[in-house]
Amino acid sequence: MTGMISKALQIGVITLTFALAACAPPLGNRNAAMSGPFTIAQQGSFFVGGHDIHSDMLSTVPKYAASGTVTVDQMYVHYQIPVRANPISLTLIHGCCLTGMTWETTPDGRMGWDEYFVRRGYSTYIIDQSGRGRSATDISVINSVKAGKTPPSQLPAVFAASHESAWTIFRFGPEYPKTFPGEQFPIEAQAALWQQMVPDWSASLPTPNPSVPALSQLAIKLRSTVLISHSQAGIYPFQAATIDTQGIAGIVAIEPAECPSASGDLVPYTKMPILVLFGDNVDQSTRWAPRLKACRAFVAAANDAGGKAQLVLLPDEGIHGNTHMMMQDRNNLDVADWILRWIDTHVRVAS
Amino acid sequence: MTGMISKALQIGVITLTFALAACAPPLGNRNAAMSGPFTIAQQGSFFVGGHDIHSDMLSTVPKYAASGTVTVDQMYVHYQIPVRANPISLTLIHGCCLTGMTWETTPDGRMGWDEYFVRRGYSTYIIDQSGRGRSATDISVINSVKAGKTPPSQLPAVFAASHESAWTIFRFGPEYPKTFPGEQFPIEAQAALWQQMVPDWSASLPTPNPSVPALSQLAIKLRSTVLISHSQAGIYPFQAATIDTQGIAGIVAIEPAECPSASGDLVPYTKMPILVLFGDNVDQSTRWAPRLKACRAFVAAANDAGGKAQLVLLPDEGIHGNTHMMMQDRNNLDVADWILRWIDTHVRVAS
Repeated sequence: MTGMISKALQIGVITLTFALAACAPPLGNRNAAMSGPFTIAQQGSFFVGGHDIHSDMLSTVPKYAASGTVTVDQMYVHYQIPVRANPISLTLIHGCCLTGMTWETTPDGRMGWDEYFVRRGYSTYIIDQSGRGRSATDISVINSVKAGKTPPSQLPAVFAASHESAWTIFRFGPEYPKTFPGEQFPIEAQAALWQQMVPDWSASLPTPNPSVPALSQLAIKLRSTVLISHSQAGIYPFQAATIDTQGIAGIVAIEPAECPSASGDLVPYTKMPILVLFGDNVDQSTRWAPRLKACRAFVAAANDAGGKAQLVLLPDEGIHGNTHMMMQDRNNLDVADWILRWIDTHVRVAS
Repeated sequence: MTGMISKALQIGVITLTFALAACAPPLGNRNAAMSGPFTIAQQGSFFVGGHDIHSDMLSTVPKYAASGTVTVDQMYVHYQIPVRANPISLTLIHGCCLTGMTWETTPDGRMGWDEYFVRRGYSTYIIDQSGRGRSATDISVINSVKAGKTPPSQLPAVFAASHESAWTIFRFGPEYPKTFPGEQFPIEAQAALWQQMVPDWSASLPTPNPSVPALSQLAIKLRSTVLISHSQAGIYPFQAATIDTQGIAGIVAIEPAECPSASGDLVPYTKMPILVLFGDNVDQSTRWAPRLKACRAFVAAANDAGGKAQLVLLPDEGIHGNTHMMMQDRNNLDVADWILRWIDTHVRVAS
């Protein structure tokens, strides 16, 4: 019996030693973080939010009943918790026409931010926005139109970003298929990015997007999380903060399509450190240049109101060539390291 | 330098020791498999299949271009590889109105089969069927109908299974909201199952479902995998085997909605061990009883043709009360253990 306990303790010490080696290397020590196996204390998934609706238009297929109750607007969350996790967790919120896959393996097969952050000792929570990916869409209107009960004009506004339009939106180059000199996206693997893209139902969802109250609930549950958003979802952490700042230890908005208005109520945004992060070649994009300008105005106004907000262009930090898809760019782990250093410097456990 | 190598070797030995302890316990030793952290050699995601289409109906929203190229019919795959993985991997294929979430955390928060199989030393590959979850849907017809260019009758046949209909299909009871005596689904957590459900586009996809050739490609890539399918996807591994038996080390069809015809070409099904597995109360379901009967006929015919097929009802093995959602039932790990024992006994590395 004593032998068993001794052995258990021994395995415990080995586990801990290994965990320390694999899960929480000092900042800057990327090789230690990336090499070899890594240890997970817990992983799993759950949903936040959603509500039940009744419909008579759930199906036009005979083997499934047309009438009944379904749950819609919930948000899928997949999480991984390393051993000896940092008390500050990271919630990753993908952008337009994409899913949580954004943060997984890159198109050219390298490690994504989800795994890298876990290897660096952070718990990660990866969401699929309401109405996309593993989070259900409400399709009853489609069936109602198919059955002739609703006019076609009321079909949901769903869109798919084409390769050609995504090319310029993601700033791979000034126009398809030209590239910016020195750009960092693995263009040769573009087909694997196109496979990741899914139709986007956000224009047919309520305002704010149901992901926003779900993110607020998630932050409260997690107690101390940095909401890291991208692109179309860039505004979500700010909108969540206007519902409740509880649990939001910080906001990192990566190339947000929209920042909060500089002339609105800025009080919620003074409660946590905020980073608005842009890549390279922003001024060469008619889509992104005005958004950068508006975000600058917001950051200045938030700081005037007593906030701790910062807007950073990666080239000003010596990191060049990043596209809108910086989490998949060739130097994606340099960008991840930069963000982790910012979090380490600015974010404290939420009180 | 010698010291560094020595240290690296030492960490290597510790890693290996820990990996052996955490990742590949002997069959039947569930506590060792479930308790504490576990070690991952590799994890990530990728897509298989898909093809490009051009459409002028990608968007009715002004900020996204209507015209361009999108990729459709690809299949999302998420994988985890434990240290010292069994050379036979497991590919998990969800059923109707669900996604790969099927195999993750159960509605009442227990460990799902994906994690359990990894803890038992198997690499797992979890897919989202083409056109569902993280695998893109083609929505161009919806926009074409919305724009008045296509008649509403041509809208895709997409359906959502209601709570009430899923209740009887999943055999929680004879009818909503009655339960079968002793049934094993965590009914108190049913809301978390309803959150998992998504609309099903399979009726609007080509035949065979694009997931089928994608599964065939995946099996060839994996060299030796057991295709474990559920319900509506029950037939997919068999259909994949008719394309190419290469890489398919075995088939486990869990309550398939359809088995191959007993009077068709059975040769592909003689090339690997096959398990068709059903839960409890099947004969009390007008939906499932005839499917069970047809699967019995298929299994008998496959064996007559020289195959190694088996049909098992869990109650005959002393495991009672299982519903159609046996991977989420209270005794889900008993069922997982039974399947792993079957695989250990019957499946050999594909030659």
